[in-house]
Amino acid sequence: MMTITAAVLTECGKPLEIIENIAIPELGRGQVLVKIHYTGVCHSQLMEATGARGEDRYLPHMLGHEATATVVDIGPDVSTVLPGDKVVLGWLKGTGIDAGGCVYESPIGKINAGPVTTFSNYSVVSENRCYSLPPQIGLQEGVLFGCALPTGMGMVQNQLSLSSEHSVGIMGLGGIGMSALIAAVNCGARLIVAIDTNDDKLALARHIGAHITLNPTSESLAESIQQANQGELLDFIVEAAGSCRTIESAFSLIHRQHGKCVFASHPKHGDKIHLDPFELICGKTIEGSWGGGANPLTLLNQAANNKQSLAPLRHLLSDAYPLSQINQALEDLANQKVVRAIIKLDGNEDE
Amino acid sequence: MMTITAAVLTECGKPLEIIENIAIPELGRGQVLVKIHYTGVCHSQLMEATGARGEDRYLPHMLGHEATATVVDIGPDVSTVLPGDKVVLGWLKGTGIDAGGCVYESPIGKINAGPVTTFSNYSVVSENRCYSLPPQIGLQEGVLFGCALPTGMGMVQNQLSLSSEHSVGIMGLGGIGMSALIAAVNCGARLIVAIDTNDDKLALARHIGAHITLNPTSESLAESIQQANQGELLDFIVEAAGSCRTIESAFSLIHRQHGKCVFASHPKHGDKIHLDPFELICGKTIEGSWGGGANPLTLLNQAANNKQSLAPLRHLLSDAYPLSQINQALEDLANQKVVRAIIKLDGNEDE
Ligand SMILES: [Zn+2]
Ligand SMILES: [Zn+2]
Repeated sequence: MMTITAAVLTECGKPLEIIENIAIPELGRGQVLVKIHYTGVCHSQLMEATGARGEDRYLPHMLGHEATATVVDIGPDVSTVLPGDKVVLGWLKGTGIDAGGCVYESPIGKINAGPVTTFSNYSVVSENRCYSLPPQIGLQEGVLFGCALPTGMGMVQNQLSLSSEHSVGIMGLGGIGMSALIAAVNCGARLIVAIDTNDDKLALARHIGAHITLNPTSESLAESIQQANQGELLDFIVEAAGSCRTIESAFSLIHRQHGKCVFASHPKHGDKIHLDPFELICGKTIEGSWGGGANPLTLLNQAANNKQSLAPLRHLLSDAYPLSQINQALEDLANQKVVRAIIKLDGNEDE
Repeated sequence: MMTITAAVLTECGKPLEIIENIAIPELGRGQVLVKIHYTGVCHSQLMEATGARGEDRYLPHMLGHEATATVVDIGPDVSTVLPGDKVVLGWLKGTGIDAGGCVYESPIGKINAGPVTTFSNYSVVSENRCYSLPPQIGLQEGVLFGCALPTGMGMVQNQLSLSSEHSVGIMGLGGIGMSALIAAVNCGARLIVAIDTNDDKLALARHIGAHITLNPTSESLAESIQQANQGELLDFIVEAAGSCRTIESAFSLIHRQHGKCVFASHPKHGDKIHLDPFELICGKTIEGSWGGGANPLTLLNQAANNKQSLAPLRHLLSDAYPLSQINQALEDLANQKVVRAIIKLDGNEDE
């Protein structure tokens, strides 16, 4: 009988545990059983695993929210995918039934899971978290369409009115920031400033198309931006560096009368952003982002029709770690050794 | 020779001083000499007089930014008003030349003034701070078009998409809050909640058209709103209560996914708003307001064509204080004894 092997969070602040022989539950209405090929590891899982999101009432539970997979079986009323289909799994709601999470039986007892989890060789997910993967997009790059790309590109495409007249900053060059950078390059923005504390990421940002790159540990951001931008601060900034302090820093780098800051960071539970109300009165704006307000299906189809735009994606992915090395992947992500850590699930020879 | 008598700020934290025999300077390009009839006293002057805006580098200086007046003389190139015209003075830029401030010679030495000041019987102001007063609008109500009305009504008309389907809160029932309330009533909002710590102001808000009124010193705002609104928080809120804490409170009363908070408060220098980034990620928005983004001329003409909409305005104004009582007016405003204190300048018998 087929069983699941998964990296499970049993206690916050402890390494994930590899649990084998997890039973596959009977599929409910709107649920889909998938075999996972690759999954990404993003900042969200790091926050969950370290307990930075506050009290976790679902322990032990599954993790992960971006992957590529093949559909194995479908539950009642599923209409958008069929067994054999290649799909992207992501946390944004696509089309089809919103089926909620599930509970797995295992040798360590019950394991909880949300509507989509991906740190396992098989997973039961909600239909609306499966997006058909166009054949032009590979199983590794496809992973990015589950979280980083819709969020980062969506922030630029849906929340900013960025054109060739504008200056834009990208603060924090993880998967989301790099995806925002790709979108800003596609918009042909007049001045693109990439900001990170890691010089390797800054070099990659230049390669992708940033006009100038700044490292806040060695230079004054505001001064350098004004020097490069005819004395002005930025029209727009996308913040994806992860903390309230970086959101505040991003907010300080935009034009006083019309600058707009959009952030994707979901900082530590309890942390607050501190803003000077007068800056908002003068006309600065700030907006949070719920996955960039993007429709991942639209984005997948756009990308499939313009393969060239996918060229930079491969640079964002680490070499694939095996599932047994997932704690190493989390650590490397935390230490900024990789932009986006990617895990190759066992027993798949598809690529 | 005609001279000016003015209430002057000579030192922050001290009462304003009445200074007589201030010389009227020669009018520069785009400047207008006006005889002032009534001026309003608003929270901004209170903040300036107490030094809450931080270091004041312009002392001694004139004050006040909303009034009605008659044009006495015009400087070179002024084209939008003529001597004898009745005008509203306000701080928002209207049409005509932006002439900057001026410096007066007086028995106590030089006195600084911005492009519009109004705590005096005569004043030299910038052309673009004079708006023609339609004859349908009285000299007392007219004062409100200089600051409170454009800000309060503008916030509702220009920054919210308020319709009969929506619920809206107004927090802080001074001149700006009451003006926002009038605009919300004109929009026919489904539920209008007025919030203030002063029960007299709440009674006036009900009279103007608030559906429910809440006093935060005696009831839980969130609970009362949910009770009155089918379990939901508000679609919109206008904050005009003056502090970062009230801005945060207003932000806490809007719907998590789509609620919008607009604030006009310009709190004490150095105070910050503390926001939970996750609430912004979920979809709440917050915006400051620069005078409601309103054009005071448009608003004056709208009001002139719909005299009925002006009926509530008289309730917002205090009995007129003489200029010699201006410090009392500031104190009464600070103690919430009046919605909008109004000063009648000496020697005018126009109304
Ligand atoms: Zn993610
Ligand atoms: Zn004012």
